[in-house]
Amino acid sequence: MTSSTSSSATTTRGRLSVALVHHPVLNKFGDVQTTALTNLDVHDLARSSRTYGCAACYLVTPIQAQIDQAHAIVGYWEGERGTSKNPDRASAMSRVHVVVAVEDAIAKETAVTGKRPLIVVTSARPQGTVPYTHLRERLDAGAHALVLFGTGHGLADSVHELADLVLAPLVGPADDDGTFWNHLSVRSAAAIILDRLRGS
Amino acid sequence: MTSSTSSSATTTRGRLSVALVHHPVLNKFGDVQTTALTNLDVHDLARSSRTYGCAACYLVTPIQAQIDQAHAIVGYWEGERGTSKNPDRASAMSRVHVVVAVEDAIAKETAVTGKRPLIVVTSARPQGTVPYTHLRERLDAGAHALVLFGTGHGLADSVHELADLVLAPLVGPADDDGTFWNHLSVRSAAAIILDRLRGS
Repeated sequence: MTSSTSSSATTTRGRLSVALVHHPVLNKFGDVQTTALTNLDVHDLARSSRTYGCAACYLVTPIQAQIDQAHAIVGYWEGERGTSKNPDRASAMSRVHVVVAVEDAIAKETAVTGKRPLIVVTSARPQGTVPYTHLRERLDAGAHALVLFGTGHGLADSVHELADLVLAPLVGPADDDGTFWNHLSVRSAAAIILDRLRGS
Repeated sequence: MTSSTSSSATTTRGRLSVALVHHPVLNKFGDVQTTALTNLDVHDLARSSRTYGCAACYLVTPIQAQIDQAHAIVGYWEGERGTSKNPDRASAMSRVHVVVAVEDAIAKETAVTGKRPLIVVTSARPQGTVPYTHLRERLDAGAHALVLFGTGHGLADSVHELADLVLAPLVGPADDDGTFWNHLSVRSAAAIILDRLRGS
């Protein structure tokens, strides 16, 4: 975790940042809830972000105990013991920032470039239609985007209302009955989406 | 976990199966070791396999305690409590099979189709050159493949010696010094690779 959210990863392409949202997200009944931080989510999203040149990786949670937990995880890997154990992990964790609300991640991104980023949301439900190639081309042409990933059963409507773009759901081959089973973990979905946007 | 490794997911395309290998893999010193089973690896690989129409998802470990652990994880989600909690998870877990060696996964796949599958290995190191489009086209044309994913610091040489194809490493944009940082988790790498092979 660094004190600045700027990064050299944005010098040639548009700036791409991501946020893992723990509130407001839906539970399985469709109600708005706050999910718990998951250690491996932090590691996986940091590693995927570092691999695909994301400038910042925000963890969004309003709960103080979870904020402390996030700082403890990131701090360990950036500290002496973590760095000597796995120096690559410190490099990934250095892009992680903890914020209490989605709006704070947007404000931090806006402060870096002086302009509000494109707010991009993702969903496993068929509510998005924007193809990945569209966003990839805009990023390659210099656009600045913040991609929001929802934990639990997905981002709440209030987050969708902030969106400039809603990406199409990730799907594989249809089942024999023509339906799609696409209950990926948020760790897996985020990795796939970053690969689609920035993979070579 | 089902008693058969056959699946209706293979009726039109070639059969694609995957294996998560816990032995023989490398540790950070380059020595051959056995890694511990990770609960979220099982869930994530099962979910990614189900999303992308893999016929079988093998967990490879020779350690009895880990075999028992794998059966306990899968059994819970296929049982009454797991199914009532999350019916989708049972559908993903039904493709998981525990085997003690890579050769056993190959034998099971060979028994289904009557022919040894293409053995495909993946590595984060620059030892593979086969593009994903090559394997995707062969699968679309009816090829049968088993893709092996290594835990720890990657698959041991003895597994690479079994390979018919070595896929190119997953990379994003290069760092400013021209190098690539690509230390993805095996969960993330497997999800990305399945999306490249079967995503729509």
